[in-house]
Parts: sequence; C-alpha cells; structure tokens
Amino acid sequence: MNLQIKRVAIVGVGLIGGSFGMALKERGLADTVVGVGRNPERLKLAQELGAVDSWTTDLDAGVRDADLVYVSTPVGMELDFISRIVPHVKPGCIITDAGSTKAEISRGTDTLSRPDVHFVGGHPMAGSEAAGVEAARSDLFVNASYVLTPTEQTSADALALMRGLAEGIGSRVIVMDPEAHDRCAAVISHLPHLIAAALVSLAQEHSKNDPQVFDLIAGSFRDMTRVASSSPELWRDICLTNADGIRAATDTFVRLLSQGVGLVESKDGEAFQEWFASAKQTRDEIIKPKVGQDEA
Amino acid sequence: MNLQIKRVAIVGVGLIGGSFGMALKERGLADTVVGVGRNPERLKLAQELGAVDSWTTDLDAGVRDADLVYVSTPVGMELDFISRIVPHVKPGCIITDAGSTKAEISRGTDTLSRPDVHFVGGHPMAGSEAAGVEAARSDLFVNASYVLTPTEQTSADALALMRGLAEGIGSRVIVMDPEAHDRCAAVISHLPHLIAAALVSLAQEHSKNDPQVFDLIAGSFRDMTRVASSSPELWRDICLTNADGIRAATDTFVRLLSQGVGLVESKDGEAFQEWFASAKQTRDEIIKPKVGQDEA
Repeated sequence: MNLQIKRVAIVGVGLIGGSFGMALKERGLADTVVGVGRNPERLKLAQELGAVDSWTTDLDAGVRDADLVYVSTPVGMELDFISRIVPHVKPGCIITDAGSTKAEISRGTDTLSRPDVHFVGGHPMAGSEAAGVEAARSDLFVNASYVLTPTEQTSADALALMRGLAEGIGSRVIVMDPEAHDRCAAVISHLPHLIAAALVSLAQEHSKNDPQVFDLIAGSFRDMTRVASSSPELWRDICLTNADGIRAATDTFVRLLSQGVGLVESKDGEAFQEWFASAKQTRDEIIKPKVGQDEA
Repeated sequence: MNLQIKRVAIVGVGLIGGSFGMALKERGLADTVVGVGRNPERLKLAQELGAVDSWTTDLDAGVRDADLVYVSTPVGMELDFISRIVPHVKPGCIITDAGSTKAEISRGTDTLSRPDVHFVGGHPMAGSEAAGVEAARSDLFVNASYVLTPTEQTSADALALMRGLAEGIGSRVIVMDPEAHDRCAAVISHLPHLIAAALVSLAQEHSKNDPQVFDLIAGSFRDMTRVASSSPELWRDICLTNADGIRAATDTFVRLLSQGVGLVESKDGEAFQEWFASAKQTRDEIIKPKVGQDEA
C-alpha cells in the first residue's frame, strides 16, 4: 500500500496537529501539509517550526484539495468543523480526528452528508498536558498508543490508510469500538482527572479546619493531583462528551473505595491487607516500571 | 542548647531508622548509635552501611544506657515495643517514634509507667515507598518535613531536643497536635493510597467487560496509582490506626467528586469548567513544580 499522501490539511495546529504535521513531513509521508486555523500569528509560528508547509485562515480553501483532513480542534468543536468541511472536500477524501472521546463524534459522522467522503475516528494517546504548537515534536507519537475507532460505516480502505499512517509515525495502533474506547477512557483517564480535582478540593476544604494540611504535602499527593493542573476548557469538553462512561466508572470506583474504607473501619486488618495487596499485584502486573525509575 | 547526644538506640533499623542513624553520625550529633532488631544479618548490614556503630538483638540491653530511643518499627508494633522499652531505660531518657499516624501512639504514651521517661511523637515525611536499610541515606531527611506532635504531657525540654535534632539533620520541623496530624495525613496521604488501590481495582474489574482497557493506560493512570504498589502490611497498620480520619476524608472526598460528576451529567459545561478550574488554581498555588519538571 502506498502511504505517500499528496495533500494533508491539518485543522487546528496545536500540540497534536502540529506534531502530526512534523511527523508526516519528517518521514516523507505527505507531499504537502497545509495548516488551517483562525490565528495568523499561531499559523506562522507553526510554519516556522516546520509543522506545516503553508497555512490559511480560510477553512474551505484549506481543505478543498486535501486527500486527508486531520481535525485536531478541541473535542467540543469537532462535529461543527467536520460538518463545515464535508461540503468542500474532493471525492474520496478521508477525514480523521484526534479527539479524546470517540462515541459522540462517531455517531455524528456515521451519517455524513456525502457518501464519497470517509471518516475514521482516532485518538493518539500522547502529550495531553502541554499545549500549543510550540510544544509540538516530530517524535510525539513514537511508541504511543494510537487508537482508531471504526464503525460499521467506516471504509476498510480509509481505516487501512490511517493504520498505515499511525504506524508510519511510530505509534502502536489499537483498533476499538468507539463506545468501548470511551468506557475504557473513563476508567483510566477521565475519572482519574475528576478524582485529582476532587482531591485538591478536599485539601482546600480541609485547610479551613487544619491550615497546616498543606505543609504535609509530599510526593504521593503531588503525583496523584498532577492532572488537576490540566486545562479546564479541554477537560470540560472531554468529560461532557463522555458523561455515561464517567458515571458508570464513578459508581464502580466509589463502591470499591467504600469497600476498602469499610474494612479499615471494621478494623479487619487481614481483609484490608488482602484488599490492598490484590490491587498492588494487579498494578505490578499491568504497569511496567519506566527504566531507571523506582516504582517499588 | 547542646545537641550532642551520648548514646542513641534505634529500634528497627530499616529505611527510616537507618537513615536517622547515618544522619546523626555524619553530622556528629551522637557519640554512639546502637541498632536494635531481631535479625542479626540485617543488623550486620546496617553496621556495614554505617547506620549504626554497634548492634544487639537484646532489646533491654540495647536501650539500657540510651539517652534517646528512636522507635522506627512498623506502626502497629510501636506501642508494644515502647511498653517493653520503658522499664529498662535510665531516668531522663527520651523516647521518640517515626510512625505515620500519631493520635493512637500519643494516647498510649500519655500515661507511661514512668514519669521520668519522656515521649515525643514524630513523623519524618520522607521516603516511605522504598524499604530496608539498604535504601537508607544520610540525606533522606534533608528538606523533608519532620512533624513533631507534642501533647499536654510532653516535656518542653524533650520537645526542644527533638526539634534541634530534626533541624540538625536538615528537616523542616512542623509542630502539630497529634489528632490534627492524623486528620491531615488522611487527606493528603492515607485516602490517596486507598484511592490509588481502588482505581487499580476498577481497571481490573472493568477489564472483564473491555479487555483492551489496559492497552490504553498512559502517564496519568500510572502516576495516580503509583502508591498502590506500596507495602500492604505497612498500609494496613497505617490505615487501621487512622480509621476516623480516613472515614471523614472519604465522606468529603466522595461528596466533592459526586459534585463534579453531577455537573458532567447535567451537561453544565460552565459550572463544570469552574469546578475544575478552582481545583487547578488551588493546586497551582499549593504545589511548587519541581525544578526541571513540567507540571503544566
């Protein structure tokens, strides 16, 4: 399969879109990459950094001759952008996205207004905390997971091309049902972000009674709340498009936490130790320590 | 105040006890440090590593001539050890501990069988995840918080000596009421450990429906569950001696989490963004990024 793509349009040239452009160009996977956005200064910067060959603030013109349109706008704006893009692209054009939730976008794109335009949902799991094209890197996707979420409507050829591109920029491709993706993302990412925020708020609220609580903060609290410093706008969009998954994950999580706390309260040391040890065993199996980092 | 102590006995020469011995010796704060434990091989190793000058497996003999006894056994065994130590020490001896909870030990030591022996509760907040004297370092306490938890029964001189020693080994001393310490520790350490374990168990349980959940694990989940890989025995003892604090922290935490999830479910984007942003602002204020580490 020939992966060389003539013209790629990147709509939203931030960390992800910019890194995708850099990776395609560096690996010779695209002839031309055009950046599309609202802010000329930011687009100029993207061009200077080598993320795009050219740029425009005119969405219609930017996507008109593209063989692939890469939508990396905030999640909450994707469907709106795609509906504006579809009428202007040429027959056979493939549209993909980089959003952190996949069910809502997949429902919205299963009935595109043109059958000769193909959508493939995607979620590159890389670098969500930094922001902006200045943080973009051509190797951002190397060894990262790149989830593709085809539906029954998805063209097999379009999926194969996206798989080839994602592997071409160094990612491990995971193909998943969009609904399953969102359920899993709620468990391993979205709920953890809410938990981090709630933990910080707990410390804040507790400080009204015990002002010294902040003095005791050590590594565990710092690590566990790191993602509470993420962008509120970004996480608003992500969470609001995955409310069902988050509710389900929360209910199970609160049940499991209450189980542990219940064992502490009943002073059942043996059962509590077993509860904790079972989690430790699972984690030690599923998480491989980073080289040189003490995870003991 | 002369901080030079003639003879220090360290009961339980692991990471904390061993590091305390190394720090005292390196900074010339004690003439002689004797290690007391059960396992001759481990005690020999402690001596080889420079944590103690001599060692014994005989508790009574080890503490007999000590001016300071440092109890760094597992939390659950401290009161038992202290009650065995008290009858054998000389008048004026100071006993301190290094346990992660302070209310239970303080209640137990407020009525020591000898009025001429002084207890000062302590909690050096350093390096709780590695274990054993082989992980001990003379600089473990440098720039760490060292909490001291006097009660109305605590001798002012004994407290002043412990403050001097803790500062002498490089720590920032925080003086707190033992009950307040435990309430705060529940918020910033004990509940977070339970949450980490519950999050791992959630992923494990979810994998029965969506086996691909583990494939999606990225940095946020790894960081947030790191402390679930801690020692189950250690955390059993810590949690069981702070059940009230953990219950109170859990109730507030679940209320705050449910608030956030409720805003997601009601699709109130503005209110959710504010909820998240308020936590972000608090965190950005209370946690100073480590130099060279991106906490953006």
